[in-house]
Amino acid sequence: MLSKILEPDSIAVIGASSNREKWGYRILGNIISAGYSGEVYPVNPNEGEVLGMRCYPSVLDLPHRVDLGIIAVPAGSVPAVLEECGRKGVRGVVIVSAGFSEVGNRELENNVRDIARDYEMRMLGPNTFGFINTHLHLNASIIPQMPEKGGISFVTQSGTFGLALVDWAASQQMGLHLVVGVGNKADVDDSDILEHLSADRHTKTIMMYIEGIERGRRFIDVASRIGKPVIALKTGRSRAGSKAALSHTGSLAGTDRIYDGAFKQAGVIRAWTIEELFDSALALSISQPADDGIGIISNGGGAAILAADLSEDLGLHLPDLSGITVRMLEGVLPAIATPANPLDTAGDGSYEMFKDVTDIMLSDPGINALLVIYVHAEMVDPCLPAEAVIDAREGCDKPVITSWIGGKGIGTAVKRLEENRIPNYPLPERAVVALNNLVRYKRILKKR
Amino acid sequence: MLSKILEPDSIAVIGASSNREKWGYRILGNIISAGYSGEVYPVNPNEGEVLGMRCYPSVLDLPHRVDLGIIAVPAGSVPAVLEECGRKGVRGVVIVSAGFSEVGNRELENNVRDIARDYEMRMLGPNTFGFINTHLHLNASIIPQMPEKGGISFVTQSGTFGLALVDWAASQQMGLHLVVGVGNKADVDDSDILEHLSADRHTKTIMMYIEGIERGRRFIDVASRIGKPVIALKTGRSRAGSKAALSHTGSLAGTDRIYDGAFKQAGVIRAWTIEELFDSALALSISQPADDGIGIISNGGGAAILAADLSEDLGLHLPDLSGITVRMLEGVLPAIATPANPLDTAGDGSYEMFKDVTDIMLSDPGINALLVIYVHAEMVDPCLPAEAVIDAREGCDKPVITSWIGGKGIGTAVKRLEENRIPNYPLPERAVVALNNLVRYKRILKKR
Repeated sequence: MLSKILEPDSIAVIGASSNREKWGYRILGNIISAGYSGEVYPVNPNEGEVLGMRCYPSVLDLPHRVDLGIIAVPAGSVPAVLEECGRKGVRGVVIVSAGFSEVGNRELENNVRDIARDYEMRMLGPNTFGFINTHLHLNASIIPQMPEKGGISFVTQSGTFGLALVDWAASQQMGLHLVVGVGNKADVDDSDILEHLSADRHTKTIMMYIEGIERGRRFIDVASRIGKPVIALKTGRSRAGSKAALSHTGSLAGTDRIYDGAFKQAGVIRAWTIEELFDSALALSISQPADDGIGIISNGGGAAILAADLSEDLGLHLPDLSGITVRMLEGVLPAIATPANPLDTAGDGSYEMFKDVTDIMLSDPGINALLVIYVHAEMVDPCLPAEAVIDAREGCDKPVITSWIGGKGIGTAVKRLEENRIPNYPLPERAVVALNNLVRYKRILKKR
Repeated sequence: MLSKILEPDSIAVIGASSNREKWGYRILGNIISAGYSGEVYPVNPNEGEVLGMRCYPSVLDLPHRVDLGIIAVPAGSVPAVLEECGRKGVRGVVIVSAGFSEVGNRELENNVRDIARDYEMRMLGPNTFGFINTHLHLNASIIPQMPEKGGISFVTQSGTFGLALVDWAASQQMGLHLVVGVGNKADVDDSDILEHLSADRHTKTIMMYIEGIERGRRFIDVASRIGKPVIALKTGRSRAGSKAALSHTGSLAGTDRIYDGAFKQAGVIRAWTIEELFDSALALSISQPADDGIGIISNGGGAAILAADLSEDLGLHLPDLSGITVRMLEGVLPAIATPANPLDTAGDGSYEMFKDVTDIMLSDPGINALLVIYVHAEMVDPCLPAEAVIDAREGCDKPVITSWIGGKGIGTAVKRLEENRIPNYPLPERAVVALNNLVRYKRILKKR
């Protein structure tokens, strides 16, 4: 059970420190400032008080046993500290300390893993940045910013890059639930986390950053049974990149083609860039999956054409409109506009126009998902077409995603779309890439 | 000569209005608030005063003749107003008014063009959002935000989308010099603007958003003679998109394949997404072009591998390092790091490490351009590796671009890179795409 690690009622921070340069200071500080409501105990034999809290010399001195021990002591001291955790009855541990297999110290790592197993403690790490649980207001990590709450859980192979990505996502106001750095995966690995997330009610979508997977068969087994979208970015597909991956992770579980096959078998959506990973996770977390058959609407022709171009590049189908749809559109469009897919309202970005054309396009039996693009021209309140899309989507089960394009003037409209759980993107191509992954996910579901 | 339009000493705003809903109000307001230092005259027979300025009934009543007339009156009144401009000796006009060929009113457009030609006035538009000249502090457009000053000039086929794009770019703090909406191109077209920009000392790079070009031969002639990079996004390459383009612009100058050939012949770099267009224009405007042979450095292995993957996808070459380079790197890298390309410093993001490895990689004869990636882990001041790259680049003529990845904590470091004219991107893949276009531009220059 990973819940004692990822949803603890009480935490000991072992290696808690008053020295701002130490991870033991940062993690304890992050736990306190994010507002975690469970019990927290600093542990360090060399400190009497840390951050105004009483500090215990050892886990053995704690007044109660705790669910989670977070260990941030030098690598050489980890076995002894872990023994004490085991004797105290700590249920799970996160080992933030570095200096294990990632620097060739595999023996120490095996030793630590064996101690944890002897005491039946699950162990995250070593060499992980920790984890975040936004719904518990728990930042048990060295990540400086707490992300917004949301339905995406992010599993990332630790290391500097994984850490920086989470920090970046937090600065983008991306809504996350759990963020887990798996580190060296000496005990808990990606598949264990996936199993936990599968049952987790806050997690709607799983986003993964993967450098390598050791137990591929188990990964495929677990991933293919998850009833939630899993989207993964896996590095190392190039000649230069896979050579570097070999030296970076110290082990190469297979060539990229093997990963590609495994993802297909497991029903994992593979993303090719960080932007695709994050943008698509957003769409997958708040929208239903989409059947192919895409409709595109815009008040500025160029944007709709750009979106249509990329849609076809990605293999999406833009159906011709039915005769009824064409006649209905003729009834509402300005004379200079042509009823077609993609549909250009010839500049009209009013509530009425956007409501009418969105309703009509959604009623076309050939259109299974809709991309609505609004390009802001300062003469219209950009909230009006946003409200039109929000209203038109009401009671309709076809996915709708949007791209509101413009400068500072569109902020409120974008917020309204977000509040109404419509995936929105600042550029039309990013919306198309995300929509394509809604279609890919629907295909995965149909095959199951 | 377009300089009387784009660099005017004096301007009449014809159709200036006190009504905030009118373009004549917005344009006059934008001219004043952006801080243009030339003379400005509001013209409108129905207003005595606009925005606190004396309003003249007609251009004929102005105390002096002016360089530029900006016309924002109903389409039907444009011919009479234009006649008056001609009689007064106005040197050039911008017709913001809509209601011409874009709504099928080609006769009126031809009429207007003929009047302008009779009086030897060059004419931008009709149906344009106007233009911006940041170095003159002149916002003669309906764009609400004034962009930052910079070396990129942006020529865009008008319409709502072009307008929204400029507004978006301004909100991204993208540095621009001229922004020109070409509108219906009844007189001045893309090629005329290109000729002007070719000689313009503030313009380092030309960025174009194109829906269609009428006089293809002239475009190729002009573009192939420009000694500055031109990067263009052209819409309508798909089946659905090109059908829409036909109905949107009312004319289709050729299929996409013809455009592709024309761009190649003219030495125009073709971008495939808005993000590529903007990101690459930034790199082209502040960096020298790059020969193939890319080196990649990072303190977080995953980011370097991701960049290497995409580099190979795009056809870039990541050479193996020379024996000397390997030995020099062995002298500075931590024991756990491998001297290779891409190079991973195994987490070390210090000034000394970044300075040493950047110096050494730049000295390798096989490496002609360098991508330096820094992933922020909160334990290092992100300004230190930035200063290292700035110092290492000093006196070296190989292009260096960067990707600083992280949340709010890296802001100052990013600013330092920008100040030192190093193209920097928040994600490594965006840096690779931009670098690829530096290489494409160098190939274009070699063919000339």
